Amino acid sequence: MTYRIDNLQYCNWSEEIFKINNKAGLNAIHVTIAYHEDFDEVKNNVEQWNSYFEEFNNLLIHGRTYKDIEKAKEEEKTAVFFGFQNCSPIEDDIKLVEAVHDLGAVFMQLTYNNQSLLATGCYEENDSGVTRMGREVIREMNRVGIVIDMSHSAEQSTLDAINISEKPIAITHANPYFWHPAKRNKSNELLKALGQSNGIIGLSLYPHHLLGGTNCTLKSFCEMTARTVDLMGIDHVGIGSDLCLDQPDSVVEWMRNGTWTKNKDYGEGSKSDAAFPRQPDWFENTLGFNNLETGLKEIGFDDKEVDAILGDNWFNFYKENIH
Amino acid sequence: MTYRIDNLQYCNWSEEIFKINNKAGLNAIHVTIAYHEDFDEVKNNVEQWNSYFEEFNNLLIHGRTYKDIEKAKEEEKTAVFFGFQNCSPIEDDIKLVEAVHDLGAVFMQLTYNNQSLLATGCYEENDSGVTRMGREVIREMNRVGIVIDMSHSAEQSTLDAINISEKPIAITHANPYFWHPAKRNKSNELLKALGQSNGIIGLSLYPHHLLGGTNCTLKSFCEMTARTVDLMGIDHVGIGSDLCLDQPDSVVEWMRNGTWTKNKDYGEGSKSDAAFPRQPDWFENTLGFNNLETGLKEIGFDDKEVDAILGDNWFNFYKENIH
Repeated sequence: MTYRIDNLQYCNWSEEIFKINNKAGLNAIHVTIAYHEDFDEVKNNVEQWNSYFEEFNNLLIHGRTYKDIEKAKEEEKTAVFFGFQNCSPIEDDIKLVEAVHDLGAVFMQLTYNNQSLLATGCYEENDSGVTRMGREVIREMNRVGIVIDMSHSAEQSTLDAINISEKPIAITHANPYFWHPAKRNKSNELLKALGQSNGIIGLSLYPHHLLGGTNCTLKSFCEMTARTVDLMGIDHVGIGSDLCLDQPDSVVEWMRNGTWTKNKDYGEGSKSDAAFPRQPDWFENTLGFNNLETGLKEIGFDDKEVDAILGDNWFNFYKENIH
Repeated sequence: MTYRIDNLQYCNWSEEIFKINNKAGLNAIHVTIAYHEDFDEVKNNVEQWNSYFEEFNNLLIHGRTYKDIEKAKEEEKTAVFFGFQNCSPIEDDIKLVEAVHDLGAVFMQLTYNNQSLLATGCYEENDSGVTRMGREVIREMNRVGIVIDMSHSAEQSTLDAINISEKPIAITHANPYFWHPAKRNKSNELLKALGQSNGIIGLSLYPHHLLGGTNCTLKSFCEMTARTVDLMGIDHVGIGSDLCLDQPDSVVEWMRNGTWTKNKDYGEGSKSDAAFPRQPDWFENTLGFNNLETGLKEIGFDDKEVDAILGDNWFNFYKENIH
């Protein structure tokens, strides 16, 4: 078994990008289909993806269970799994959890950057943890088979989610705080709890999550990977690149501001640095997986460990949780 | 000037109830038109009210500013003002604040019992205060002229709202915790801060907020009123009866559960006491304002003070904040 999986992308989708993912040997990607969208808006996004699946059926299949990753590998295609970076698609209605699963959602963050009805986002000043509705929704997500993703959530909320959920949870795209102390990166305590609960982190290649940003070196990233593996165990670390290829800057502005403010929030950026950041030259797109393979081997990981990090761990997580 | 105002009702509306309010001499009532409704559902409720205004134009006028209270008094009718017990009508969109004001909303709670996108409800275990979106929405409510109502919100969230809002806020329906320690009732610290900020509380006649529940005595209620006036000042205490006349018990179940849980939450009730509680015999409907007048005089309030509590304070609050 050797799979390559990138467990978070939000690109401005095109045949070119699908071909790059294919050329990079990706058997599966998890794509974001909601930041602020409500249920009806998500349905529209699913329709758009159905068009892609039809038009590019030589490159893509719609991923619903881990078996679609096996199938995609056999057919040399990429299985595309849907997820949400916010709980906005379920609005305030717990019954929509099953409905979004029917649409194909297999990951859902309990929050984006702000407080949600379910939990607290990492940009809030105070973190009150998983809410009353959050507890109910976690139970329902466990029941219908949607993975809880806490990538953008605050510390206590994430620890709560690990404890409340009867199934392992994921942080699909983030890095450790010890390496780069950004709000979105995660504490050692949290990463340990995630590993011990059989959860998984997808390490991020988004420059705001990287030490040195765009200038982060491949070596530094791979050393961070090694330290994270030391902390969590080799089975609990994968990749979630957070690639946003070809997106106009209006998209990052919308991601940060949605409809919650009439002012302008710059999120991980700043007024003078508001745009999407440029990718490091060793990870301009998913062909960078080849560089990661080289880099991870160079700092001492063996072939099996490299395969684990670049896809097999995510495959095993899917096999256990998405079926 | 002598007005009679009941600043919270959620009855199963009928000509009979409108006539009782009229007979009780109420010049204005604030009615709840949303617990869990989204924007479109609120529009439907407004349409229903427009039908009432048309059909019962001998009894009602639609209240939009304090001048409608003066007009209603002249015409011996009741001005009906709209409010929400939740922020669900603005969904996740700050621009809907102005839209709901256009529909006639002049009060909006930042939360019902649970965490909202704006603040924490009083039934949550932890209270993280007003959120990032909450700060923005308070500013927008101040701008367009919707009063912030924290009747169902948790302590820190309410103190935050008092501090953040540039205009006085209201607690339209609750009682002091010192008298009856229910989750929905308010601490001395909070009541003092409310009074000092020129805010106002509407004392509630809902049995779960009353010492002794249905068996609460008029004397006890009036003594509590006196102690609350001592704490907050005579200008800051009014009535918000929280009357839910003629509602079937399915309504209180919906109020408590909305669509946030697949289990059953009993709110202020319990499994063995799930129904709407019976009103005290001295306040079965708003004709009970006459009993309040008698009771308040008996424990020593003078005529002017009684008028202040039974309506003039609310009138002055409207005059300052709803125009």
